[in-house]
Amino acid sequence: MKVAILGYGNIGSGVAVVLHDNRELIKKRTGVDVELKYVLDLREFEGDPIREKLVHDIDTIVNDPEVDIVCETMGGVEPAYSFSKAAIQKGKSVCTSNKELVAAKGPELLRLAKENNCNYFFEASVGGGIPIIRTICESLRGEEITSIKGILNGTTNYILTKMEQEGADFDTVLRRAQELGYAEKNPAADVEGHDACRKIAILSSLMTGKTVHFEEIRTEGITQVTGLDFAYAKALGRSIKLLAMSKRTDEGVFAMVAPFMIPAEHPLHGVNDVFNAVYVHGTMLDDSMYYGRGAGKLPTASAVVGDVVQAVLATGRHIDCDWSEESLTLLSGAKIRHRFFVRFTGSEDGDLVKKYGADNVIRIPEDNGGFALVTRELSEQEFAALSKESTNMVSAIRLED
Amino acid sequence: MKVAILGYGNIGSGVAVVLHDNRELIKKRTGVDVELKYVLDLREFEGDPIREKLVHDIDTIVNDPEVDIVCETMGGVEPAYSFSKAAIQKGKSVCTSNKELVAAKGPELLRLAKENNCNYFFEASVGGGIPIIRTICESLRGEEITSIKGILNGTTNYILTKMEQEGADFDTVLRRAQELGYAEKNPAADVEGHDACRKIAILSSLMTGKTVHFEEIRTEGITQVTGLDFAYAKALGRSIKLLAMSKRTDEGVFAMVAPFMIPAEHPLHGVNDVFNAVYVHGTMLDDSMYYGRGAGKLPTASAVVGDVVQAVLATGRHIDCDWSEESLTLLSGAKIRHRFFVRFTGSEDGDLVKKYGADNVIRIPEDNGGFALVTRELSEQEFAALSKESTNMVSAIRLED
Repeated sequence: MKVAILGYGNIGSGVAVVLHDNRELIKKRTGVDVELKYVLDLREFEGDPIREKLVHDIDTIVNDPEVDIVCETMGGVEPAYSFSKAAIQKGKSVCTSNKELVAAKGPELLRLAKENNCNYFFEASVGGGIPIIRTICESLRGEEITSIKGILNGTTNYILTKMEQEGADFDTVLRRAQELGYAEKNPAADVEGHDACRKIAILSSLMTGKTVHFEEIRTEGITQVTGLDFAYAKALGRSIKLLAMSKRTDEGVFAMVAPFMIPAEHPLHGVNDVFNAVYVHGTMLDDSMYYGRGAGKLPTASAVVGDVVQAVLATGRHIDCDWSEESLTLLSGAKIRHRFFVRFTGSEDGDLVKKYGADNVIRIPEDNGGFALVTRELSEQEFAALSKESTNMVSAIRLED
Repeated sequence: MKVAILGYGNIGSGVAVVLHDNRELIKKRTGVDVELKYVLDLREFEGDPIREKLVHDIDTIVNDPEVDIVCETMGGVEPAYSFSKAAIQKGKSVCTSNKELVAAKGPELLRLAKENNCNYFFEASVGGGIPIIRTICESLRGEEITSIKGILNGTTNYILTKMEQEGADFDTVLRRAQELGYAEKNPAADVEGHDACRKIAILSSLMTGKTVHFEEIRTEGITQVTGLDFAYAKALGRSIKLLAMSKRTDEGVFAMVAPFMIPAEHPLHGVNDVFNAVYVHGTMLDDSMYYGRGAGKLPTASAVVGDVVQAVLATGRHIDCDWSEESLTLLSGAKIRHRFFVRFTGSEDGDLVKKYGADNVIRIPEDNGGFALVTRELSEQEFAALSKESTNMVSAIRLED
């Protein structure tokens, strides 16, 4: 069987490595020899052995009946969407690492794959090497999942881990992460939470079977988190993580991305550096967690190739995924309820503890000009209303228990 | 589609609950109405509504062409083996939680399922609700797995966690675990490591594609672990866990079950109480971990029902599993290499540190009649030879890093 890779960047070149190095293993386990035939990229890669497989025109791939499987590792919605659609309409299975495209067009491409009796697989789009998509779609298909909470972005988790371990501030750690290649020159997609938002939109859709639109998910990044927040977190026996979460409540499904303070006993607490983890609760299963490298060339490529192997085994047969094009209306962000950690300047005037339903005032030596409270459970709306009245409020971080 | 349950004990009755409570969900996600038709058990269950489905003769189930799927939750090799075989030979898929049977006869039943174009699924046989079997067989099928390390027994993990947290001794905690129903009256299968041994035999077989015989796995339980060991572990920044592990080395595959001291930074360190976790390393994937309830009625039943759903979706089609009947010869236990934590009575005579290649003597206030060392890396054989010469040695626990 012949495979094509669309986009020879970090992940795409990793897929070429994994297909090459594990070719015998895949042959032994599937009985099929899977060979890379084409790589689509605009660049020329002079002197690189990949050049002999390089093509610049998607039609060469789409119109070659020898190609059964296409790995789309381009990122972004276009032209990845048009290319994937064209391949699927020719009955070729597509395996992708592209969360932007899956979040934007996943259910349509799934429907087209069904109509064309092939597959659209996207294991690598969430959690890098962590096999979370197939786990939810297949292993847990008989299970009612009630919440998913994840550390879904390696860059921000690396930054927060270093801020915690070294007491460094956000800008310093971001610069180092950029030097090490863990953060991009324009880090907005990661540090503003947009990447995690796409990923939790995908997981929320799989949890509910309907389409959760990422644009509707309340999303905050980590740029406002300070060293002082970590000093307070330590005093509270907590850490700060960028969590992407989705939860069924009696009122509806809520989803959000924001920094949260989580307690030391929580299994997500120990997920550090560029590692990711997804914490899944089901009514029968109870709690479970899936942990691994959430990014990186080879772990992510391994997930793409895992999909290729499944596509090989499912040749001529569509594997159904419970994700319809019908939209799910999320619970209004204003109604989501949490406790909040809140920092203030000045001194407690006696009313704040009562107003926010806090147990006590928290003071740490590092914050000599201020203090903090942990509020009772409040909706976002209630908290926003209360905080408008507090002119000496500095910042707030939600608590997860 | 009609389902039968063999054995109405803890797990079997859980399967009945999950099939009932999630019936609509399963219908929505598979398009198939899955109904429980029979429960096989020797007992009568007077007054229990299950009685109307109760049968005492396996032939009623095996000879009923309406029954497509059989859930085998009996435990033990016989009669579960004969019953499973009879069902498979009639083309019925079997979903099991029975690790004894899977470890003893798994590849044969898989071959029979292939010959009869049905399935033998065993997700619930390892790690309770943790979807580790399908992850290894399907998601990671394109990945070369090089090691699997697991906390695979909930009872022993509960006992070790309480010993650590409360400073209690083994016998006291075991009695409490028995009162709470976490340990059986005859706890040998758990505390001597036999249960974990069956489970790592299954995982090792899936890792290698050949049959690893559980009888060949070097297995030690937790009955020799003391409160003093935990005091030393704490001083070393470690915890003590019963690990079941399997690893590819240049000399071959080794497998063993034993208590290990593991460092605080290791993701398995935080796996407490009755939770289980499986830590998998692959050449491309790097490290990953799968965590959840390793036992318990509903989580384990959820895994059985997850298999039922997959069997429904795969009706008329065998899903291949890379596990042949060919035996794998494990590396001799004597060759397995680790560092060892070793306790001695009396005082260090000056030679022991050098003899065992230790960095220094470890003393803690709790052990006023003795001391401890951490050796250099030694094979089991080397360590056994050295320890024969040390008449003042009390006990040893291996280290995992």
